[in-house]
Amino acid sequence: MTRSDGREAFDLRRVKIVRNYLKYAEGSVLVEFGDTKVICAASVEERVPFFLKGTGEGWVTAEYSLMPRSTQVRNVREVAKGKPSGRTHEIQRLIGRALRSVTNLKALGERTVTVDCDVVQADGGTRTASITGAFVALVDAVNTFYAPETTFPVTDFLAAVSVGVVDGEVLLDLCYEEDSRALVDLNLVMTGEGHFVEVQGTGEKAPFSREQLKDMLAAGEKGVAELIDYQKDVLGQLAWRIGRA
Amino acid sequence: MTRSDGREAFDLRRVKIVRNYLKYAEGSVLVEFGDTKVICAASVEERVPFFLKGTGEGWVTAEYSLMPRSTQVRNVREVAKGKPSGRTHEIQRLIGRALRSVTNLKALGERTVTVDCDVVQADGGTRTASITGAFVALVDAVNTFYAPETTFPVTDFLAAVSVGVVDGEVLLDLCYEEDSRALVDLNLVMTGEGHFVEVQGTGEKAPFSREQLKDMLAAGEKGVAELIDYQKDVLGQLAWRIGRA
Amino acid sequence: MTRSDGREAFDLRRVKIVRNYLKYAEGSVLVEFGDTKVICAASVEERVPFFLKGTGEGWVTAEYSLMPRSTQVRNVREVAKGKPSGRTHEIQRLIGRALRSVTNLKALGERTVTVDCDVVQADGGTRTASITGAFVALVDAVNTFYAPETTFPVTDFLAAVSVGVVDGEVLLDLCYEEDSRALVDLNLVMTGEGHFVEVQGTGEKAPFSREQLKDMLAAGEKGVAELIDYQKDVLGQLAWRIGRA
Amino acid sequence: MTRSDGREAFDLRRVKIVRNYLKYAEGSVLVEFGDTKVICAASVEERVPFFLKGTGEGWVTAEYSLMPRSTQVRNVREVAKGKPSGRTHEIQRLIGRALRSVTNLKALGERTVTVDCDVVQADGGTRTASITGAFVALVDAVNTFYAPETTFPVTDFLAAVSVGVVDGEVLLDLCYEEDSRALVDLNLVMTGEGHFVEVQGTGEKAPFSREQLKDMLAAGEKGVAELIDYQKDVLGQLAWRIGRA
Amino acid sequence: MTRSDGREAFDLRRVKIVRNYLKYAEGSVLVEFGDTKVICAASVEERVPFFLKGTGEGWVTAEYSLMPRSTQVRNVREVAKGKPSGRTHEIQRLIGRALRSVTNLKALGERTVTVDCDVVQADGGTRTASITGAFVALVDAVNTFYAPETTFPVTDFLAAVSVGVVDGEVLLDLCYEEDSRALVDLNLVMTGEGHFVEVQGTGEKAPFSREQLKDMLAAGEKGVAELIDYQKDVLGQLAWRIGRA
Amino acid sequence: MTRSDGREAFDLRRVKIVRNYLKYAEGSVLVEFGDTKVICAASVEERVPFFLKGTGEGWVTAEYSLMPRSTQVRNVREVAKGKPSGRTHEIQRLIGRALRSVTNLKALGERTVTVDCDVVQADGGTRTASITGAFVALVDAVNTFYAPETTFPVTDFLAAVSVGVVDGEVLLDLCYEEDSRALVDLNLVMTGEGHFVEVQGTGEKAPFSREQLKDMLAAGEKGVAELIDYQKDVLGQLAWRIGRA
Repeated sequence: MTRSDGREAFDLRRVKIVRNYLKYAEGSVLVEFGDTKVICAASVEERVPFFLKGTGEGWVTAEYSLMPRSTQVRNVREVAKGKPSGRTHEIQRLIGRALRSVTNLKALGERTVTVDCDVVQADGGTRTASITGAFVALVDAVNTFYAPETTFPVTDFLAAVSVGVVDGEVLLDLCYEEDSRALVDLNLVMTGEGHFVEVQGTGEKAPFSREQLKDMLAAGEKGVAELIDYQKDVLGQLAWRIGRA
Repeated sequence: MTRSDGREAFDLRRVKIVRNYLKYAEGSVLVEFGDTKVICAASVEERVPFFLKGTGEGWVTAEYSLMPRSTQVRNVREVAKGKPSGRTHEIQRLIGRALRSVTNLKALGERTVTVDCDVVQADGGTRTASITGAFVALVDAVNTFYAPETTFPVTDFLAAVSVGVVDGEVLLDLCYEEDSRALVDLNLVMTGEGHFVEVQGTGEKAPFSREQLKDMLAAGEKGVAELIDYQKDVLGQLAWRIGRA
Repeated sequence: MTRSDGREAFDLRRVKIVRNYLKYAEGSVLVEFGDTKVICAASVEERVPFFLKGTGEGWVTAEYSLMPRSTQVRNVREVAKGKPSGRTHEIQRLIGRALRSVTNLKALGERTVTVDCDVVQADGGTRTASITGAFVALVDAVNTFYAPETTFPVTDFLAAVSVGVVDGEVLLDLCYEEDSRALVDLNLVMTGEGHFVEVQGTGEKAPFSREQLKDMLAAGEKGVAELIDYQKDVLGQLAWRIGRA
Repeated sequence: MTRSDGREAFDLRRVKIVRNYLKYAEGSVLVEFGDTKVICAASVEERVPFFLKGTGEGWVTAEYSLMPRSTQVRNVREVAKGKPSGRTHEIQRLIGRALRSVTNLKALGERTVTVDCDVVQADGGTRTASITGAFVALVDAVNTFYAPETTFPVTDFLAAVSVGVVDGEVLLDLCYEEDSRALVDLNLVMTGEGHFVEVQGTGEKAPFSREQLKDMLAAGEKGVAELIDYQKDVLGQLAWRIGRA
Repeated sequence: MTRSDGREAFDLRRVKIVRNYLKYAEGSVLVEFGDTKVICAASVEERVPFFLKGTGEGWVTAEYSLMPRSTQVRNVREVAKGKPSGRTHEIQRLIGRALRSVTNLKALGERTVTVDCDVVQADGGTRTASITGAFVALVDAVNTFYAPETTFPVTDFLAAVSVGVVDGEVLLDLCYEEDSRALVDLNLVMTGEGHFVEVQGTGEKAPFSREQLKDMLAAGEKGVAELIDYQKDVLGQLAWRIGRA
Repeated sequence: MTRSDGREAFDLRRVKIVRNYLKYAEGSVLVEFGDTKVICAASVEERVPFFLKGTGEGWVTAEYSLMPRSTQVRNVREVAKGKPSGRTHEIQRLIGRALRSVTNLKALGERTVTVDCDVVQADGGTRTASITGAFVALVDAVNTFYAPETTFPVTDFLAAVSVGVVDGEVLLDLCYEEDSRALVDLNLVMTGEGHFVEVQGTGEKAPFSREQLKDMLAAGEKGVAELIDYQKDVLGQLAWRIGRA
């Protein structure tokens, strides 16, 4: 099967990460997965949440938001509803957990890095694009206060991709149109070491078999590996600091 | 390794499901996984959400709440904070998706079944106990309006269990103390057919390998199969209606 | 007149108080007035509200909530509405005031006892059952930190009952069906000494005379005396500490 | 004992009710109980709450608010806190119930009368002043749509007063300073017939005896009777319509 | 053109400012612009917002609210909506800025003066009446803690007036009926020196020319000058302190 | 005086408007005033607010938001605070009024155009850039449903600019650093005809004279004229439709 945009089943969309997209943020990127575009801004603050005060450890957290007209039909701002939706909560908790899994919070010191992922255009895969871009913004932000000869607080690469079963076939990196037809939907977050940080598969419309899970994991592993290669290109020299003790 | 309560690594805790626990609800159970206790109440209403009006289809949704002193330290009521937490959102969305995956919404007709999962005591696994109990309450609720010779709206059994990696070993159905020491945490929701509805694995504290994922899936499959056997016992005759076209 | 459940006009429903109902709370009971069931959990915290800091005095407060399907028709969770209803506010303020009326806040020390009253099933009299059960939970909670030879912080027994005028007759301890037909509704909170802590009578549907008030007070006094006798049985030895200076 | 303002124990403060205080409201008064001043505005709307649609019956409801500097220390606006306090809820529910107890909702027709009680200055007794003033505003509002020869929707007079036990003595109509010293506090709402609509007595600081209750009721009955006499003066001719079938 | 109430185009309505309108507030007035009536209460608190702590400077802020039946049709309380409307926000920010423009925050010391403007009756010009009255309340409040021989914290007089273009003619101090017909609406806040503090002109229904702006400014300047003359009368001796270094 | 970025006092910053910036919105631009960058997305919906139903008229409204790291220091998302700030309210009301002033709501038909202005980077003048960009997005959006030979619903050009008094000198189009030093701040919204839609001048830190107002208006008029020339370039052919009856 060839896909609507000409891709093969296990192809990623065109990926682009523009570093230093914003003037004020310590780290910021514009990340694009095809027509999905997200601005990721990492802010460093010299404070930590209550439960970490005095421990010498830092924190990494994330927030996520769809711009009202990032979607086909305008979506009402969450502030107008008074609170974030359940979907927003889920995604920003996922991004935060994923970033923390490759952060040495001790090496971070008593700082908080908040990564804001604001979706400018949503064509499927906004959470996976956000994680992939947020990682690069995090590296840039951490680098602003990194002192040579110390442990670099980012311990490994991190990227994410979606996989789905559409018309009985496993497809990598679904666009919105494919996503809305998918019976099964799996999001994978993985490290440069090839380990899993998050595996979130859901078969609300059709439960899936052990075999299908295996195929989806294989497709996702291929996609994440390519994304991490691209992150290395984009980060250039800075890539060498990651995982450096 | 023997566990704090004497269980083997792949043992479930003592499970108990009491049907008809409440006087007014169309379906209700008290479900216990060891010291974790949840009241699941299924309510049938002759209305559907806006997006289903006139389609002839119904809806299944869930709400989840911790009672203030279900936990070791009293937790503030969410109403006092004005909104549910991100964790609550995530769990109630998960329960709702899981129940819908085994419901024939067409056969339900234009009705909404809301399953309230109120946690009386929380000793780990509240979301998996909720799903396992909510399924039984749903069956009882659906049965109140089921007309013989028609398609029974529940299409398969459904249960959930947690698995984790603690001290390097894969353990099934974690209690709170184990859960807080686990580096990896996987929640599995599966059907009577042995298919996956949700696979949610997270390795925030330590990414996990493909091999570990395989072991955890195996443990989870065993646990779910036992839970579904127990549901069949508890439902008795009614079990025969499930999946009956 | 014999009542729907066979009781005489001045009879209480079957009352049951199960102590230590929860694993974590300092004090907890399941209280039943007929089919009305409430879980009362008393939590002790080593802090006081702002206005008591440094005074050496403690505080007792209460929260009240109906579980969504405690009622005949499912009621929307208050968190979904963003705030407690007026009725909830009134009841939890009433429970808190009542408990404080028999607490020596000086003897309590700078601690807060919060009693959560979560209604599992509502068949009339949820506020009076809550007060009657919360008192026992409070005694158990206070006992966890009581040091021999000091003043026990609970100064007297406390129970509550409802009285109403139904079809022209004064009835004690109304169930839901009677309550909805009552023209006059009186809630009485009284102490072991036989004194009034709260008298709340309302004749929205029909103002009541001085004579009717007298009869209702007499019925209520009888009911409260019986409830306090039962509390003494349930508390056993611990009952002797109450009011002990 | 003579009181701080020279009154005897069973004396009311100087009471004043100014009708037609506002230009737009269907009924409006400024009511003063000594230094306590409340603007009561009754608005008539040609709609009813959901549960009354199509029944031919109307509704009467009330809202209550303290102006920020009605009190000795500025109190934060409730809108700034996002929701009314428990105290506000209790008081506005009380006022609404009290007004409905003397309204023939059938004769009202499918209309809602909302009486807003905004406290300009608070020197004790704001809820009793509000009820006493709101009643007059209600009569004026109802009169704007009253058709001769039909049943006048207000069935009886209504007024309210507070009573308390201060330094062991029963006092009528407490000002703020007395109220803050009172051990027992009773609010009475009564009709022109001398019947009770609400009896709300609370002895949080000191439970009270049957004897004290009797004395407080006697003082309150005297106070309400005087207030109703004054309402009759103020309403003039219109007083004759009340209770007219 | 003569106006509905007989005024000439550049005439103010009858203005009245009653000082010491409330018993507890440090400064308070009832201000009337024709049928528009606003209670302005200035409260002094010995604290400052976070950003001023330790600077030795004080703060002046304002809040604004319409009483529910100040308007022709009852408006829903903002607390019932959970938050102030955009219009309320705009007006209270405007009043605060205006008052601060004539306050020497250094001379105020670390104090906050909050001026509450509660509109009792709204017949056009509520924001301009609020500013004009709030100024007088501010002067009275500041005077309660003013020490002789120090700099008086109020540096100049301040008043505000509205101007509009109605039926092609520039009119001063619009009442509600004129305001609703105006194509252009200008609010002016000016000082005793004749300087502008705020110029807010809006031509949503019809953009206006440079010439019209000039005419409106002239009318507004005349109106403000008259209001300030009246403020001087009302303040009497106290007027001499204003601007005194 | 030469300015920090080398501009003369009456120079605009470099202005750039990119049309069709988003894939889904009916009209969308990225507008830049120097380092200030705003995404303006115009959405057309076939519905109108309640008060316009059945009138045949349409509506234009706007929403405004700062992205969290558009500013030097990260600002907390408004959804996290539960409601938009007063500043946000003011700005979005201003944008909406300004756009409506050049829209023929009758010619729009029963449609709502919502223009979302999301600030990506904030270096002063975000509200004036928003209005200037939102106008272009509005024209594009309106053009998607414009039928030849009918009245084009946009009646005139519209742009906005800020002017301030900094160090005693009138400066056009302030950047953030200048804005924070300005004693007087004026925002002007004007039409292609050279008429005023909004004049908002505030001298919180220093009231301003009639002479200064005249100078600021002159600078603003020059700036708006240049912005409208640029809008004409950017709109090309489409510019000819504006104001076409």
